[in-house]
Amino acid sequence: MQRTLGVSLLCASLVYAQTYQRLGTCPSLGCVFPPDQANFLPGQLFDIRLEVHAPVNGSEAFNNGVPDEKFSFCIQVGDGECQDASSFFSVAEPVLSTYNFTWYEDLFAEEAETPSVVNVAAKSYRALSLAEPGEYKAILKYFGTQQTVARWQVRSTPKEAVAKNVLFFIGDGMTQSMITAARLIAHKSINGVYQSLMQMDQMEALGHQMTHSIDSYITDSANSATALYTGKKSTVNALNVYADSSSDPFDDPKFETIAELFRRRRHGPIGVVSTADIADATPAGLCSHTRLRDELPSIIFEFLYGAQALTPDVEWPTSCEGPDVLFGAGAEHFFPGEDSYNEEDFYAKFAAEGYEIVYNKTGLEATGVDQKTLGIFSTGNLAKWIDRNVWPENLVGGGASPLGDESDALDQPGLKDMVIKAINILQNRAQENGTGWFMMAEAASIDKMMHSLDYDRALGELLELDDTIRATIAHLEEIGEAENTLIVVTADHGHGFDIYGSTDTKYFASKDTDREKRNAVSVYQGSGLSGYTVEPESLPTNDTIVFGAQGPNFPVNWEPRYAFAAGMAAYPDHKETFKIAKTGPRTPAVKSDDGVIANEKDKPSGFHVGGNLDITQAQGVHSLTDVSVFANGPGSDKFRGVYNSIDIFYKIADALALGPEGKYEAC
Amino acid sequence: MQRTLGVSLLCASLVYAQTYQRLGTCPSLGCVFPPDQANFLPGQLFDIRLEVHAPVNGSEAFNNGVPDEKFSFCIQVGDGECQDASSFFSVAEPVLSTYNFTWYEDLFAEEAETPSVVNVAAKSYRALSLAEPGEYKAILKYFGTQQTVARWQVRSTPKEAVAKNVLFFIGDGMTQSMITAARLIAHKSINGVYQSLMQMDQMEALGHQMTHSIDSYITDSANSATALYTGKKSTVNALNVYADSSSDPFDDPKFETIAELFRRRRHGPIGVVSTADIADATPAGLCSHTRLRDELPSIIFEFLYGAQALTPDVEWPTSCEGPDVLFGAGAEHFFPGEDSYNEEDFYAKFAAEGYEIVYNKTGLEATGVDQKTLGIFSTGNLAKWIDRNVWPENLVGGGASPLGDESDALDQPGLKDMVIKAINILQNRAQENGTGWFMMAEAASIDKMMHSLDYDRALGELLELDDTIRATIAHLEEIGEAENTLIVVTADHGHGFDIYGSTDTKYFASKDTDREKRNAVSVYQGSGLSGYTVEPESLPTNDTIVFGAQGPNFPVNWEPRYAFAAGMAAYPDHKETFKIAKTGPRTPAVKSDDGVIANEKDKPSGFHVGGNLDITQAQGVHSLTDVSVFANGPGSDKFRGVYNSIDIFYKIADALALGPEGKYEAC
Repeated sequence: MQRTLGVSLLCASLVYAQTYQRLGTCPSLGCVFPPDQANFLPGQLFDIRLEVHAPVNGSEAFNNGVPDEKFSFCIQVGDGECQDASSFFSVAEPVLSTYNFTWYEDLFAEEAETPSVVNVAAKSYRALSLAEPGEYKAILKYFGTQQTVARWQVRSTPKEAVAKNVLFFIGDGMTQSMITAARLIAHKSINGVYQSLMQMDQMEALGHQMTHSIDSYITDSANSATALYTGKKSTVNALNVYADSSSDPFDDPKFETIAELFRRRRHGPIGVVSTADIADATPAGLCSHTRLRDELPSIIFEFLYGAQALTPDVEWPTSCEGPDVLFGAGAEHFFPGEDSYNEEDFYAKFAAEGYEIVYNKTGLEATGVDQKTLGIFSTGNLAKWIDRNVWPENLVGGGASPLGDESDALDQPGLKDMVIKAINILQNRAQENGTGWFMMAEAASIDKMMHSLDYDRALGELLELDDTIRATIAHLEEIGEAENTLIVVTADHGHGFDIYGSTDTKYFASKDTDREKRNAVSVYQGSGLSGYTVEPESLPTNDTIVFGAQGPNFPVNWEPRYAFAAGMAAYPDHKETFKIAKTGPRTPAVKSDDGVIANEKDKPSGFHVGGNLDITQAQGVHSLTDVSVFANGPGSDKFRGVYNSIDIFYKIADALALGPEGKYEAC
Repeated sequence: MQRTLGVSLLCASLVYAQTYQRLGTCPSLGCVFPPDQANFLPGQLFDIRLEVHAPVNGSEAFNNGVPDEKFSFCIQVGDGECQDASSFFSVAEPVLSTYNFTWYEDLFAEEAETPSVVNVAAKSYRALSLAEPGEYKAILKYFGTQQTVARWQVRSTPKEAVAKNVLFFIGDGMTQSMITAARLIAHKSINGVYQSLMQMDQMEALGHQMTHSIDSYITDSANSATALYTGKKSTVNALNVYADSSSDPFDDPKFETIAELFRRRRHGPIGVVSTADIADATPAGLCSHTRLRDELPSIIFEFLYGAQALTPDVEWPTSCEGPDVLFGAGAEHFFPGEDSYNEEDFYAKFAAEGYEIVYNKTGLEATGVDQKTLGIFSTGNLAKWIDRNVWPENLVGGGASPLGDESDALDQPGLKDMVIKAINILQNRAQENGTGWFMMAEAASIDKMMHSLDYDRALGELLELDDTIRATIAHLEEIGEAENTLIVVTADHGHGFDIYGSTDTKYFASKDTDREKRNAVSVYQGSGLSGYTVEPESLPTNDTIVFGAQGPNFPVNWEPRYAFAAGMAAYPDHKETFKIAKTGPRTPAVKSDDGVIANEKDKPSGFHVGGNLDITQAQGVHSLTDVSVFANGPGSDKFRGVYNSIDIFYKIADALALGPEGKYEAC
């Protein structure tokens, strides 16, 4: 609908559409967090942060740089009176803090090193909630006549849950063009008719979600995880907080996640699974609250002990209470050393809290289903599907052992192994408590491999995700939980990837110049048919790959003579051959004295591609496109159509009835 | 499902996945058209073509180059006996023809000019049909022991229509990333919440369709129009025929289109509307049958007189019977001259068949709704939305008058003008006959502008399409036909486009070197917010653009300081500034003695981007990605989910009940 915009937009033309922003979610000089347009689940915990800015210099300089310390703040319900916030929430008036920060107004200012200085007066209310659905106005008055109005909406939510369990799959960075490409290389087609389809293609509901950030139209994975898990958009790098202007990355105004709500309301077990460092943004987003996703050791601390323990002075009476399952990588945050919290041994700390700990696929398979379980299978991120399954020799020499002894991590599980085991543990623990369970499982390296223009590996990861979803549905049917379990599959953002033709790699190799090599690319009718599903005569039959509905569907030949030709919308300088990087993931570009340049060791026989990114970027970057949502099971019909990423949180919360009066009763 | 594959695949490993193919839909030496996996609507007319190939030389050389002229061909219904085709269809045995053709096996062969020669024996059965739903096998036996089995499926179709009218919108080349980008620049957002949405976002059903070709995974618009209109995939450049190996581009085996079926079964009026040359592939696809979409004069002939008149010796007893509405461009095929059929005056010929003819927007508005109407508004393609609405001076000097007198076409209608008028004419003519109507309306230049990397113009065209859909729904509600009308919106293929950041165009302009200019690009949080919806203070208020549900929603500023940074997966050498080309559509690359190079006159102040296409390509090319489908009205629920492009034909045909026993009765 078209709305008459409130005061908060009066200053918009000054600063909107600037790439450098004083504080993204606060275009005026008075800041209210949660900001205008924020949505809430009834009873969802959140902080309120108020800031009044007085810029000392620059285009916004005001009031000689003296902020108004006597600002007032009230809450208005519907058309009622605006009630002072402390009284409205029955809490003590928070202490005022004052400080300053600096920012650059544009690239010229940054280049000239002429920052703008802003003095600030601020207050934070902690751990509040609004139980009643409806429209609220939060009104900040300052500098006598100025005000900022934040219109908040507490959504209504059903009292009866339709889903007992939720399994939320995130294909990080996964766009529809990648799903299409994965189908092409892993499913057989005859005369334009696929003989089998991706599992995602066959889900009950299809939707699209808009991934943009609150204050920039391109998101990162922290910010988008926040939207998916809390129903609130935030700023790039922020996890479940609105980024404020203070320097402490842990005091920003928080809001409660789906995992915290599931613990607090349903008291059920939680699983967090990722093929990345388990402290990476997408898994971290379930349990962490910080403006800086890179605070990885603290994120591990928070998984185990919660935000309240991390910052004892800041009230936050909700947490994941230690996820029942935590499977992934990032071992360097667990064994004692410079990357672990206070250099302490977090394997020991998890064990002290009752966790079983497993370090490899064999251990994962062998461990029981009774205890909380931590599975950390390598340092960094897990090895990629292609390297684990096609060229396992690439794992040798990586020194990625989760024990931190620099031995190799050769016995790594895949996403499917982790998810099936996680289901069994959660299912067992939920039955003990008479609840359902909640799990997020991330195929993280779709994104990571797209960043490094390693399309083959990215598609391998995507196919592993699809294979995992297929196996999961079969497993849930087997254990009788399919009809109780809402499965949602989506991405957190895109990369501008697409296939546009094929490359005769033999012809390519026979040519010497960049322009001659490019003539190996054929388009339209010249793209021909996929060579990835045709078993080469020179190789033994691969009997682990089964084309068809039973799968698993993967390419049987990752090196066909006619390889797909693909490209990205955004890319650093790099070299291209269109052939798979056989010895391990690509590093397309490297830093030099003149900024980022093509890595001459990566695809040395390739032609040179000059980038279209700023020369600080050594990788591709995220893109704008809406991403697909697929859903199965109870509540899946709500995932049809086109909506905002934040809506996914409400749809899941509604399916689980996570409002104050919600409950689940088995049929 | 996983199928046991028939004989037709035994030779597959020889030629599958080759970019150069002897005959795309025929990997073996015996060819059956329609080929294996073909689907049919009951009673849909089609030709059968049989070819036996004997390669004289090359990797497939066989039988000393002598084809088997004594091949046999039979049809098997279900598990019954295979019956000789002439007897099965009760037709005379066709005459055998023999000839040869040549092809190149790969790029090396083409470079060395060493073609392979193939001798052929062939037969064609014309204008057959299968009335009974079910599984059929068409079996060709040749060279004694070889056979090719084509498994055909005649789908079942309802007897009762749910839709009276169908309006089929095609956004040529329109991907979800473009729809996302269009939303960004034309709809206002506050703190990550859009205050209005695209009309497409709000349709009742969302689906995805796979666009690949029958014999290549990248399609062109002819081939994809064929799939959408007939339920049969074909080969690049082919319109409603399977490409055979004979030299005549008009004798290939035909199949009936949705428009022909609507005429033959429903006897209702047809509309064809495009912003392109009306002989271009997407409009042509409704009524034409040829292997070569570039036979533009013949396509105009076929619109008016049908295929039977074009090739009197080839039986084809169905046609569009002259569409009731034909609106678009391509005037050079109408006024007498080298681009019109036999250099004749086709305005005169359309007039002689009873058509009203209009040449500009004023005439379009003024003309009545009783007669068949031809509206041709320029030579080539219509001017773009941006040039018509923002910089109309760009139309001056184009010499695009539809009269062919080289005066300017300054009074051109937009897609919305054409579609609303077309609805009124079709509605009036349908009421006369007591039928519903069928219309296809194409936003053609989304594709054309993406080809030339002119992202702004492409998005302008996309926004015009969305505005047209919005206005169409309102108009149908006004005339009481909304609940009778199935509206389907989709694309025919994609381009690998996406937005990945923003560019400070002021900073860009201040820098001299390519690498310094690139540093004007900012990503993630640096992308900031859209500047396109913020009215610049230096410009007068644009009161034709209204943000919100009522629209029309377009950018109010096409030249914000912070322009979006976007790129393509496939691109020729070109220069980039990220600023809109103000004086008219871009020409990013030009031919030189060394193949295609960047056009130094296009964005002369830009940085240079080296392409990733073969150096014969002066434009971007189509991509693989699935495209979105949106639908409203009766039958729209069938458009949910993921399916093949050919399924769109069956969904529309089912909504209209275009099978032999189908009928529409108003409630």
